[in-house]
Amino acid sequence: MRVSKPHGSLERNAALRALYQSVRAASGRLGAPLSDADATVQSMPDASPAKWHLAHTTWFFERMVLEPHLPGYRVFDAQFNFLFNSYYESIGARQPRPRRGMITRPSLETIHAYREHVDGAMARLLHDDLAPAVAELIELGCNHEQQHQELLLTDILHLFAQNPLRPAYKDPGPIAVGDTDSAPPAYRRFDGGVAEIGHGGAGFAFDCEGPRHRALIEPYQLADRLVTNAEWLEFMADGGYRNPLLWLSAGWTTAQSEGWTAPLYWEERTDGFWSMTLRGAQPIDPAAPVTHVSYFEADAFATWAQRRLPTEVEWEHAALGEPLRGNFVDSGRLRPAPAQAGRAGLRQMYGDVWEWTRSAFAPYPRFKPAEGAVGEYTGKFMCGQFVLRGGSCVTPMSHIRPAYRNFFPPDARWQFSGLRLAGDA
Amino acid sequence: MRVSKPHGSLERNAALRALYQSVRAASGRLGAPLSDADATVQSMPDASPAKWHLAHTTWFFERMVLEPHLPGYRVFDAQFNFLFNSYYESIGARQPRPRRGMITRPSLETIHAYREHVDGAMARLLHDDLAPAVAELIELGCNHEQQHQELLLTDILHLFAQNPLRPAYKDPGPIAVGDTDSAPPAYRRFDGGVAEIGHGGAGFAFDCEGPRHRALIEPYQLADRLVTNAEWLEFMADGGYRNPLLWLSAGWTTAQSEGWTAPLYWEERTDGFWSMTLRGAQPIDPAAPVTHVSYFEADAFATWAQRRLPTEVEWEHAALGEPLRGNFVDSGRLRPAPAQAGRAGLRQMYGDVWEWTRSAFAPYPRFKPAEGAVGEYTGKFMCGQFVLRGGSCVTPMSHIRPAYRNFFPPDARWQFSGLRLAGDA
Amino acid sequence: MRVSKPHGSLERNAALRALYQSVRAASGRLGAPLSDADATVQSMPDASPAKWHLAHTTWFFERMVLEPHLPGYRVFDAQFNFLFNSYYESIGARQPRPRRGMITRPSLETIHAYREHVDGAMARLLHDDLAPAVAELIELGCNHEQQHQELLLTDILHLFAQNPLRPAYKDPGPIAVGDTDSAPPAYRRFDGGVAEIGHGGAGFAFDCEGPRHRALIEPYQLADRLVTNAEWLEFMADGGYRNPLLWLSAGWTTAQSEGWTAPLYWEERTDGFWSMTLRGAQPIDPAAPVTHVSYFEADAFATWAQRRLPTEVEWEHAALGEPLRGNFVDSGRLRPAPAQAGRAGLRQMYGDVWEWTRSAFAPYPRFKPAEGAVGEYTGKFMCGQFVLRGGSCVTPMSHIRPAYRNFFPPDARWQFSGLRLAGDA
Amino acid sequence: MRVSKPHGSLERNAALRALYQSVRAASGRLGAPLSDADATVQSMPDASPAKWHLAHTTWFFERMVLEPHLPGYRVFDAQFNFLFNSYYESIGARQPRPRRGMITRPSLETIHAYREHVDGAMARLLHDDLAPAVAELIELGCNHEQQHQELLLTDILHLFAQNPLRPAYKDPGPIAVGDTDSAPPAYRRFDGGVAEIGHGGAGFAFDCEGPRHRALIEPYQLADRLVTNAEWLEFMADGGYRNPLLWLSAGWTTAQSEGWTAPLYWEERTDGFWSMTLRGAQPIDPAAPVTHVSYFEADAFATWAQRRLPTEVEWEHAALGEPLRGNFVDSGRLRPAPAQAGRAGLRQMYGDVWEWTRSAFAPYPRFKPAEGAVGEYTGKFMCGQFVLRGGSCVTPMSHIRPAYRNFFPPDARWQFSGLRLAGDA
Repeated sequence: MRVSKPHGSLERNAALRALYQSVRAASGRLGAPLSDADATVQSMPDASPAKWHLAHTTWFFERMVLEPHLPGYRVFDAQFNFLFNSYYESIGARQPRPRRGMITRPSLETIHAYREHVDGAMARLLHDDLAPAVAELIELGCNHEQQHQELLLTDILHLFAQNPLRPAYKDPGPIAVGDTDSAPPAYRRFDGGVAEIGHGGAGFAFDCEGPRHRALIEPYQLADRLVTNAEWLEFMADGGYRNPLLWLSAGWTTAQSEGWTAPLYWEERTDGFWSMTLRGAQPIDPAAPVTHVSYFEADAFATWAQRRLPTEVEWEHAALGEPLRGNFVDSGRLRPAPAQAGRAGLRQMYGDVWEWTRSAFAPYPRFKPAEGAVGEYTGKFMCGQFVLRGGSCVTPMSHIRPAYRNFFPPDARWQFSGLRLAGDA
Repeated sequence: MRVSKPHGSLERNAALRALYQSVRAASGRLGAPLSDADATVQSMPDASPAKWHLAHTTWFFERMVLEPHLPGYRVFDAQFNFLFNSYYESIGARQPRPRRGMITRPSLETIHAYREHVDGAMARLLHDDLAPAVAELIELGCNHEQQHQELLLTDILHLFAQNPLRPAYKDPGPIAVGDTDSAPPAYRRFDGGVAEIGHGGAGFAFDCEGPRHRALIEPYQLADRLVTNAEWLEFMADGGYRNPLLWLSAGWTTAQSEGWTAPLYWEERTDGFWSMTLRGAQPIDPAAPVTHVSYFEADAFATWAQRRLPTEVEWEHAALGEPLRGNFVDSGRLRPAPAQAGRAGLRQMYGDVWEWTRSAFAPYPRFKPAEGAVGEYTGKFMCGQFVLRGGSCVTPMSHIRPAYRNFFPPDARWQFSGLRLAGDA
Repeated sequence: MRVSKPHGSLERNAALRALYQSVRAASGRLGAPLSDADATVQSMPDASPAKWHLAHTTWFFERMVLEPHLPGYRVFDAQFNFLFNSYYESIGARQPRPRRGMITRPSLETIHAYREHVDGAMARLLHDDLAPAVAELIELGCNHEQQHQELLLTDILHLFAQNPLRPAYKDPGPIAVGDTDSAPPAYRRFDGGVAEIGHGGAGFAFDCEGPRHRALIEPYQLADRLVTNAEWLEFMADGGYRNPLLWLSAGWTTAQSEGWTAPLYWEERTDGFWSMTLRGAQPIDPAAPVTHVSYFEADAFATWAQRRLPTEVEWEHAALGEPLRGNFVDSGRLRPAPAQAGRAGLRQMYGDVWEWTRSAFAPYPRFKPAEGAVGEYTGKFMCGQFVLRGGSCVTPMSHIRPAYRNFFPPDARWQFSGLRLAGDA
Repeated sequence: MRVSKPHGSLERNAALRALYQSVRAASGRLGAPLSDADATVQSMPDASPAKWHLAHTTWFFERMVLEPHLPGYRVFDAQFNFLFNSYYESIGARQPRPRRGMITRPSLETIHAYREHVDGAMARLLHDDLAPAVAELIELGCNHEQQHQELLLTDILHLFAQNPLRPAYKDPGPIAVGDTDSAPPAYRRFDGGVAEIGHGGAGFAFDCEGPRHRALIEPYQLADRLVTNAEWLEFMADGGYRNPLLWLSAGWTTAQSEGWTAPLYWEERTDGFWSMTLRGAQPIDPAAPVTHVSYFEADAFATWAQRRLPTEVEWEHAALGEPLRGNFVDSGRLRPAPAQAGRAGLRQMYGDVWEWTRSAFAPYPRFKPAEGAVGEYTGKFMCGQFVLRGGSCVTPMSHIRPAYRNFFPPDARWQFSGLRLAGDA
């Protein structure tokens, strides 16, 4: 992993302490609205219980940092190594992923005690001077926990959407619907050439974001905003979900077998389409970006629109001209595109929805996984997934950067994923 | 349903009130050791969450009794009709059974409030004179709730058995293991002839227990006690789970595909076999009756022992000579056969484990399902199931009677089911 | 097995020779219209290729009769023991049932050579005096082959029904449709009492048909003819496939998941319903008995008609008064009920469709499976199946008898199965 | 599609006629050893019956060429449009892919008549001057048929491998096993830079092979020969199939659930490993290239060997220096690497096994699918597949070219697929 390198170790320790504390506190706030039952149930094999997210991120610090690096550290509960290991084969046996929701005990309260136990030990560790490798692991652990913060909200929305009562995670009142910006998107043109891509500078990044390397780009254009719900409704009205010629073959098969006729969480009521959100069921806002669409749907939409999805190289190249300023309002709220654009004329690059690219998740040239258990972090998932770029309304703002590579299988749609159109220039 | 008919309506009301209160209080006690999470999770499609059991039994009174028969009754929450209807097609749509575990809200606390709301209304109803049909429905509701009390414990054991921590529902201390009674069972002989079978007298019974009718019996013999764990270990040691010639064809297929090598919940440790129980993991007691075996296993064991399972007619005919006195110690505790036998020389007829019979669950001659929604109570399940007789250590004692017909599919083994051998005479 | 016992061994041998030759020749005739490909493909796991039926029945004689009882017998091909063993666990490993259709070689021609090889050896064996046990095995083998003759036609119909070209097994011309007998069935009344049931006299029977035993019968009535297609169309028009209250719970689940809206093989065309038959697609004949319905459908129909299915005891008791005279026209042709009734006033008892009874397939009192490999013949299937009585238009006429117990799972409908209504008297 | 452009139309027609005739004759030869049953059975949903391959390629000419372009053409059988359409949504409904094996009729003989009928009509069409678009379609049809020639052999091997008799498609005698070349592969070094990739010149290519475009390459090295069976046995002996750290996450899951312990078709006998081949079961030749391995296995092997798979750009860049000269001996025969290398020092580039690359199958920059129905040819499969390069021992030699992009899902292994190692330089 590539981590930030402040000048002195004192500064570094202070920065790490601050990072650690803020990340851990944020997780605590996310868990606060949840009951023990909310935090325990697993709504599908791909999702995890909130309790599991809270415990697994804690286990990561315990297992990767405290056990090897804090002398005298006392493990909170030896059985948690089995319960809260996610997928680290090198660490050993673990609760099967689809059975994570069976763990009604330990309770949420016990998990909070576990978090406090580990936080206390981490405070002791962070008090002293840290070897660079340990500091790196801690920074990785913080970024890891931020990923799980987004997953926690993503999974809770899925769980609550299974409940016919459509409970709200927070603030169940109606969201003010913005004015519909009926103007079509503008397309920004980018020249071709050899660009530098991938994380290379200061600051943390996951191993898959590097090495920084050159890439050849042909001239292309990129929409200045995301595809909206209004545009998606047009696609639906034009038979988008019924015309196999718009779809990838695997996408059509999936759409048929799953009975897709709209994005996930949409339901038609007498007064139009509603969608399940973290604030409960809400009417669709036509001007807001469409979300909870799969790669298959995004690709079919782009074909229908006689455009295409961008590659991840195109996206990152365009984003480099943009300030890291997003729409990050709060968890689970999507707003229309703001009038003001960034330097390159683009809007909504960060903080609304993850944007599907047409790039399969693959290693960059000369990529090497990290050494040790964390070497299982990303490399072993480089198959059958597509890269998403940007960051969503449930991504922690400090977790976003232009080189960030998120990835999901093409049929996944419970994450906050949307799309921006591109074309050849 | 056939219900008890005390002489006067005052007496009847008082008896009903007492029955209602004691049954409802018992459910409350069963739910007490459970956390919100424990009560919410569904461990498999055949099991239901404890919260669902507590709510569904309450809904039964609300929907079948209070709504039609208590003027001015205010429904606690109109959405509960969808959430807590089990399988009544005539009542309408409902939460799909395999998705009962998604309902994290309402919370367990709200369900308790629901129970109190209904109990209050029921107290008002029970205060006045009741039409016989209403009294019948209430008695049915109480018996229905007793069934769910057993299911609640059965399902909680299954849930806790999925947890690698093997939590105890109650009293996790070790159970004193009795002396092994190494004596083989004695076989009691019964003459053939025409017997009267089925519920016919006073007292409540489910519709499937009648009509009382004549049945022709050939001379037979019945073991005076249940098959023990020690005997089951012999079966295992003799290759019982590896010899297809002992098994029904469908049983062998199931045993192979499920990888059965011992009863459900058994696990081999360095010091022998242990089993998951409501008191947590416990060493196997050789003298206690074997439990959590399927019909397929019970039948294979009987073939191995060169005996057979009794028919339900044989069981009931033998039981009629027995006092309704059982082993009912407390929930989830199995004890060796007592020395003292009943009138017919039989032991362990009630309150240990449900005893598989070789009789498919089928309508008695001239059986007619009850009128109305409760007509869906048993008749529609008369296919693909086998009858079990007796009653188990988690059956409420007052719920047991000689004519009682429990039923499960032949591959089910999460219920407290064992066996008693029989033979031709 | 109970076999016929002619007076002398010479007579017995001659009778056996004649039986053997006629049964084997009949199989040859059934296979004649089939191409190598027709005879090889398996259309579903429950069905078997025609080639397999022709080979397996031959293997039965080779393995059970010739190998142990004809000195010097040379096995045709040692690998056939693996390929053509059906389910005899005591004989060893075998081609998995769902993979029987992978065996493109040996060819149909080789299978015919196999049959001739075995027939030659059997002729030598049948030439000499036979031990009674060997004669019994041969008679069993002939009856076994007759069962497979029916299965061959049943399975070929299923295979051809998968082909959009709807090929005919034979005689593709239209079947003359009879006049509709619009008269409702008459119900014949039978007194209750103790009846003798089960095979007991001379002649062959499978082990499950005995022992002959007494059974107690309550007074009942039985329709004098089978349910017709016209009546089934009424059931459909009245929403029979849409009303869950008519169905067993497992039946409704199956009907929904399988999308049943009519009997198997029915398809609606612009000019009404057609059905796939052994003569290709044909318009439904309203007066002919309905066939290719499952137990679930038959039971739902009976509920809708406010009747019930008979028990197998009731059916056999009624049939005993009837001459063994059926409708046996030829393979795959169903005709309206004839005007002339049998002694007890019943029509269509044999040779039209197998009649579902409400009796689960279970052992008769004191039933013991046969010794040796043939002990796996029926006993191990006594679970999850319902008994059908009578015999169908594809059953060899000499294979029918009043005590015959056919059995299928309640969701099976590719066999020629229909129903006759019954009621309490 | 990009097609060859000879100078004059006469020449072009003559060349097309020759191509058509040679391709069609080759298919006929491939079908010759098959019985009607061999040609009809479908061994898994991904495979197709040989009869289907022979008919579908013929249907392609009939539907795409003759119907629109030969006035007065009489369709052979209108129902074949349903039976033999593969996946052209724009053409309409078709036999579901997993049910292709149900079509026992039309017979293989009828399919041969169909082929002759179409060949006759094609001869008439090819006699006259052809519009360029029609000539293009015919050239596409010929290349399409060559693809199916390889698939026919690939699928027949899979079918015969399901048969316990292990029949040979041809020449069942033993294959002479070559001397083991125990020398490790040499690695050839290639400089980085901007290379031109993709089909661009004369001659036919599928649409996905273009447009020709520039690609940036970092310096790399490539093994001069394929990975051998001997090397694969080392991998197995070193626990390659038991160590999750070597595998992609999805690969490990697949390997576990499918029980992979060796390449497809390998079976361990007392004298070592054997493999099913088109010549029947044969002992493994240590010096021959390993085949029938999935992408998952190839990738795990490369990780174990501390190398990686090449990208498709690297492969094509290296191959451009090579003469198009391969190992093409005959169908289904794999030989050790020849001593003589090509210009760039590489051996076994064509005609042994398809070589897995680490490149996901994706559109080249500015890719546009062809117009019309043939636009469904490759574009809609650009998801979830990996590119393979080279060509195998069952690929028609004239079908091979450096730019050719074959593709399969990462778990597929019934095709003739192996690997060549690469590394960074």
